[in-house]
Amino acid sequence: MPVRNRKAVITLLTDFGSLYPALMKGVILQFLESQTDVTFVDITHDIPHQNIVAGAFALQAAVPYFPKGSIHLAVVDPGVGTSRRCLVVESGGHFFVGPDNGLLIPAARSIGELKAYEIDVPLESSATFHGRDVFAPATADLANGKEIEKMGPLVTPMNLDVPKPRKVPGGIEATVMYIDYFGNVITNLETLPNCPVSLKGIPLKRVKTYANADLIEPLITKGSHGFGEIAINQGSAAERFSLMPKDRIILEEETCSE
Amino acid sequence: MPVRNRKAVITLLTDFGSLYPALMKGVILQFLESQTDVTFVDITHDIPHQNIVAGAFALQAAVPYFPKGSIHLAVVDPGVGTSRRCLVVESGGHFFVGPDNGLLIPAARSIGELKAYEIDVPLESSATFHGRDVFAPATADLANGKEIEKMGPLVTPMNLDVPKPRKVPGGIEATVMYIDYFGNVITNLETLPNCPVSLKGIPLKRVKTYANADLIEPLITKGSHGFGEIAINQGSAAERFSLMPKDRIILEEETCSE
Amino acid sequence: MPVRNRKAVITLLTDFGSLYPALMKGVILQFLESQTDVTFVDITHDIPHQNIVAGAFALQAAVPYFPKGSIHLAVVDPGVGTSRRCLVVESGGHFFVGPDNGLLIPAARSIGELKAYEIDVPLESSATFHGRDVFAPATADLANGKEIEKMGPLVTPMNLDVPKPRKVPGGIEATVMYIDYFGNVITNLETLPNCPVSLKGIPLKRVKTYANADLIEPLITKGSHGFGEIAINQGSAAERFSLMPKDRIILEEETCSE
Repeated sequence: MPVRNRKAVITLLTDFGSLYPALMKGVILQFLESQTDVTFVDITHDIPHQNIVAGAFALQAAVPYFPKGSIHLAVVDPGVGTSRRCLVVESGGHFFVGPDNGLLIPAARSIGELKAYEIDVPLESSATFHGRDVFAPATADLANGKEIEKMGPLVTPMNLDVPKPRKVPGGIEATVMYIDYFGNVITNLETLPNCPVSLKGIPLKRVKTYANADLIEPLITKGSHGFGEIAINQGSAAERFSLMPKDRIILEEETCSE
Repeated sequence: MPVRNRKAVITLLTDFGSLYPALMKGVILQFLESQTDVTFVDITHDIPHQNIVAGAFALQAAVPYFPKGSIHLAVVDPGVGTSRRCLVVESGGHFFVGPDNGLLIPAARSIGELKAYEIDVPLESSATFHGRDVFAPATADLANGKEIEKMGPLVTPMNLDVPKPRKVPGGIEATVMYIDYFGNVITNLETLPNCPVSLKGIPLKRVKTYANADLIEPLITKGSHGFGEIAINQGSAAERFSLMPKDRIILEEETCSE
Repeated sequence: MPVRNRKAVITLLTDFGSLYPALMKGVILQFLESQTDVTFVDITHDIPHQNIVAGAFALQAAVPYFPKGSIHLAVVDPGVGTSRRCLVVESGGHFFVGPDNGLLIPAARSIGELKAYEIDVPLESSATFHGRDVFAPATADLANGKEIEKMGPLVTPMNLDVPKPRKVPGGIEATVMYIDYFGNVITNLETLPNCPVSLKGIPLKRVKTYANADLIEPLITKGSHGFGEIAINQGSAAERFSLMPKDRIILEEETCSE
């Protein structure tokens, strides 16, 4: 009876830049059984160093667009080599592999009820590169069809601790979740303010798409991720306002009749 | 009767940097039929923001090296969310998907007679990310073998508007088409000038390959793309001459007996 | 009798940035026979321009993690278009393709006894892009199962010339082999010094993992590659100490009772 090939989609997200992601792919390819075919997709390896908020946002932004059964290997891991745990997680038919520091949780939560399992760190693994020595082999196990319940004990994972947007005197406090390659600043605002807002004293034009603002005009829009996004038409809002993921901002709100 | 797997090569070219290209790949993988195998090749995601000239050049440089049947998804799209049309294009056995702003046209023209079809923007698509919501699904349709004629009405696409090189008093006017990672400046000159030339007063040594110039010496050569290329042996001509794609330059030409 | 598909893993390492690696992949895909399936893995395309030491290190760091039979296409090639030879190399069940300038040798040596063969430069190939015109077709030949002994005459390849670490008055002289994306400085020290060391007068805390140093504290550790690595916990040692691959450094060693 011919064995049907198993097709695995494996995504990778790190703050590693280049080189190290390739080592993780090499390890995965070494551990794959011959009837497993793999498609690798790099989500990004440009997360600002050790910025778990930005990594978690990017993962959450990407995962819902992948087919069920995809395996998401994500490593932004300032605590590598310390006692922080290593996890495999299942949610909504997707699998996640990475450190227990909140990185995986918003993405997993956004698509279902998550179950997290702690995996062992092999004795011979390096203290500085669990992506290669712990997470890549676990990813290959999942791609080969190993049952996640058998990979370790069920645990309660750490949450990612980002405060929800809230009204403050004079405006709305929000958190910068991500800066994209255009310098667009993606916040955790799920609805846009009702009244005109400014940031650091500079008014943000409320628009439907970037091109509705003038050239180099600061704007706020409901971005493609579904969150409030501060941008500059054909410019970089991150540079103009000097912002990084994890920064708190205050959107100064005018009073208006809503 | 066993179904043979269909193999699709899908290339991607954008000015998105990271993250967003992965979302497009996720959507394509979701829409692929199970018997379609895909190989993704990223051409580049580092096109200078909204620089259609650079994007069109990179696409034209890459496409002829890919096998027939390849599908090229290209998005450099300052007009996203406005009334600019969305296209699928067939030429020389290759397929192209992207915005109707000239981006796809030089590549498609360079390999055959093109036919362009307008595709619909689904009502539920975002105003800022047609790459994910419009172009990725169309790419998957083509990979699944959908006939391009059935994807929308035949239309006449917008051309890319780049003036041809021309003689001007004192020299030759050309356009910078692309800056590569080395800082080499690729122009639209199809033949090198017959007489010695300078740029901004600095002589360019005419050589066959970079190593034929001295270290850090400015040079002009017929590059691997078949166009006149201004480079600096082990240095960056783009930095030295402060150039960007779409810039016009004047190559100051000495008189000489040809 | 059904033909079994052949699966080829092809890695790519260059100093090309983007665009040019895609042209190499296109050429490989054009030359592949229909029953050959390929998985591309980009090791890195960010090697500092023409820095053969850094390229050789990255290749050596990555190759052991890939499965036997993998084909490693590596191009850092300041001598392109000159008389330097083009090579295919076999070692430890892996294959290598690239220029004869030392780039491939440390990786090949690290996994077995190497055999190197010179391949021809086709007459019609460009003088500036052997990656596309010479090395990519040779890579496809290997992926299609061509026997390496038939690809050209056996030759003795050039070595990479990096001096071994040595005791000097006041300390240990070593070479910087690689700077990773975190700015970690990887040296060619195979064992850490026994006594406390400083670099440019700044003490380096000897630790097991980055998080064992204080925030922004310079440190030295046995890195995941097995070499002495100078780092700054949550900072960039390369910036702090102004270092590049190929630089010589002196680790100033205190006297201590070992």
